[in-house]
Amino acid sequence: MNINLDRLKNNIIRLGWFGFAGDENKEIPIGDKGITRLPYTRVYTEAEEFVREQMEEAGLETYTDPIGNLFGIFPGENQTDEMIVIGSHIDTVVKGGLFDGSLGVLAAVECLRVLKENGYQSNHKLVAAVFNGEAGVKYPPYLGSRAFIGDKFSYDELNQIRSARLGEAELEASAVDTSRIKNFLELHIEQGQVLEEMEKPIGVVNGIVGISRYRATTTGRADHSGTTPMELRDDALIKASRIILELEKTVKKLNQDGGRMVVTVGDIKVKSGAVNIIPDEVEFLIEIRDMEKANINKVFKSIEDLNIKGLKIKETYYEESTYLNKAVQQEIASAAKSLGYDYMDILSGSGHHAGPMAGVAPTGMIFVPSKDGISHSPDEWTDWEDIEKGANVLLETIKRLDKPKKH
Amino acid sequence: MNINLDRLKNNIIRLGWFGFAGDENKEIPIGDKGITRLPYTRVYTEAEEFVREQMEEAGLETYTDPIGNLFGIFPGENQTDEMIVIGSHIDTVVKGGLFDGSLGVLAAVECLRVLKENGYQSNHKLVAAVFNGEAGVKYPPYLGSRAFIGDKFSYDELNQIRSARLGEAELEASAVDTSRIKNFLELHIEQGQVLEEMEKPIGVVNGIVGISRYRATTTGRADHSGTTPMELRDDALIKASRIILELEKTVKKLNQDGGRMVVTVGDIKVKSGAVNIIPDEVEFLIEIRDMEKANINKVFKSIEDLNIKGLKIKETYYEESTYLNKAVQQEIASAAKSLGYDYMDILSGSGHHAGPMAGVAPTGMIFVPSKDGISHSPDEWTDWEDIEKGANVLLETIKRLDKPKKH
Repeated sequence: MNINLDRLKNNIIRLGWFGFAGDENKEIPIGDKGITRLPYTRVYTEAEEFVREQMEEAGLETYTDPIGNLFGIFPGENQTDEMIVIGSHIDTVVKGGLFDGSLGVLAAVECLRVLKENGYQSNHKLVAAVFNGEAGVKYPPYLGSRAFIGDKFSYDELNQIRSARLGEAELEASAVDTSRIKNFLELHIEQGQVLEEMEKPIGVVNGIVGISRYRATTTGRADHSGTTPMELRDDALIKASRIILELEKTVKKLNQDGGRMVVTVGDIKVKSGAVNIIPDEVEFLIEIRDMEKANINKVFKSIEDLNIKGLKIKETYYEESTYLNKAVQQEIASAAKSLGYDYMDILSGSGHHAGPMAGVAPTGMIFVPSKDGISHSPDEWTDWEDIEKGANVLLETIKRLDKPKKH
Repeated sequence: MNINLDRLKNNIIRLGWFGFAGDENKEIPIGDKGITRLPYTRVYTEAEEFVREQMEEAGLETYTDPIGNLFGIFPGENQTDEMIVIGSHIDTVVKGGLFDGSLGVLAAVECLRVLKENGYQSNHKLVAAVFNGEAGVKYPPYLGSRAFIGDKFSYDELNQIRSARLGEAELEASAVDTSRIKNFLELHIEQGQVLEEMEKPIGVVNGIVGISRYRATTTGRADHSGTTPMELRDDALIKASRIILELEKTVKKLNQDGGRMVVTVGDIKVKSGAVNIIPDEVEFLIEIRDMEKANINKVFKSIEDLNIKGLKIKETYYEESTYLNKAVQQEIASAAKSLGYDYMDILSGSGHHAGPMAGVAPTGMIFVPSKDGISHSPDEWTDWEDIEKGANVLLETIKRLDKPKKH
């Protein structure tokens, strides 16, 4: 039993036209200004309608909850009450690409369609899910899955949700009994270059890394560049440069034990920068992603050890890491193996609906390669043969997870 | 014979009020928005008029040339045709301070006044000079002295000069026969912290350093911070940081042989900087000042040796260094010694009218300490006792240079 690539490809392209700002005479909606599909907009609703039609064609019973999650339920008579939820999202960032989210949704629908066509009788309630509001544009990130599992929203997040004329009543009515969720599965593009570099079509995701962001400031003294000898200087940019290199060195060193921590200084500014003034204040943004907060703390210990005067570091953002379920990872790996596909363990560097879902049920993610690691961009691309492999692994994993419990 | 500090102090403060933007009830025009006195403005002309009055009170014959240089000539009957020119400037940067330029002008007038009061008969034509347009705001830097010595101006510089309704005719008519210039002397604040740090009231300037400025660009690849492992990154900011630290290290190393080179990276920008994107283009400004271009080339050799891919460095500005006359330096040192003042050799980190003048005649500069090295600022300050010492060294040096040639 295999998925139908032509049908899946066709659906991905058809969904891609919803919100595509570019040449309509292209064969595929990529490039130009990409695809913009924000939650609760007209184009989102139209795209959702398209997915609902596909679900119905696949023979699924569809249902939309009050917060705007769309579900397609696999019919069957021998199902337990436990759900295996398979899905992703169809909202995008501004100027997003063809695959991020859409692949996971349409592959889920395709898998259930193939199962249906083959007369498969499921042991659990198989549910294809389109969770609303993943990208965090205008609305809280992972809005749909968090509503689904009855997660709490902050005051600011509730205000964002209210801007769509929705509130606590809708959130409550969207929450399910999480003990009924047996598994969650999400197929997604990697959004990085690891699979491509390692020439592996399938990534078995071990976890979603935590994100810590900091605003760092170094201060010095704004002396004149021409009249201040090197040994009398207090240069804030020299200090910042030392820290930037130390961050890289420390993280690479910590990774020697197999770690996959990343550190990035993505922006730096000299306050009142000028060619002939020694920088007296430099601000730069540090981001560290890792599975363990303890490792991140080690990095800052090494920065502390530099003993740089006038350094201030303030945490501005923190998103906890998520370990995905080991047993589900093993099922995905076995699935790939049984299909003869090469695979590897991988971390997800960005967040997904699988994050919140992993908090309530054994969850798995399957990655397929992103060309040049590009994502959140009109130039996002994944080869169709990798799409096919990813969807087949998803199908095979669903079947494995759907096996009746051994007594 | 000594200068009259009360009179000099009084004149410095009186001149300071011209163009001072701040509380008029202060005792001294410092702080607030400082002093702004740009060439050819009403306030400049009024300030010039004030200096002319002082020159006349001192018993000097005054003369303004077509480009706007003001001269006060010491009268005498036994003078040769050779001039000893002593002076500086009274134009400022925007929001400048009380001493930069003004000190050298008013000290020159004070010295000639004391000589006159003491019935001194000079052997050469002693000339107190207010050279126009030093600071390079709106007009070519060192405009007045360059016109005085008949220097060539570039097309762009001529256009700047034309904006004051002056042109080649005025420049030509301002040029003197440079063979008539025996010496030029300039007393100036250090604008750095060396004298203060070394606790020396007098600096004997060995030379004015050359200035080389560069725009450097490093390029990398703008991958996603979360999904790109450390070993797959091409980070333009890491490259820039390495260069910034290498520049500092190399210059400090070269200085171990007694060099006084300085290197500054005064500004840096990440193109499209963002917390979650690996910098793909970083631009930064490098400035190196030294007496020898060959040393500056050595610095770039060490940067080249780093072999950093995607590095481009473009020279944007070059101002040649100027060695000041050794014999005049010796006279200044002897003058300080004879007065019992501590002194030291020093380099000037910024340009002065003494630069162009050194090209045509043996030239000397005397520095006095700048508090905290601050200059080009409303907070510029030099203690009055240092002012007095500097002016006395200037007086004593004039007398030494004025001695008749030995046959």
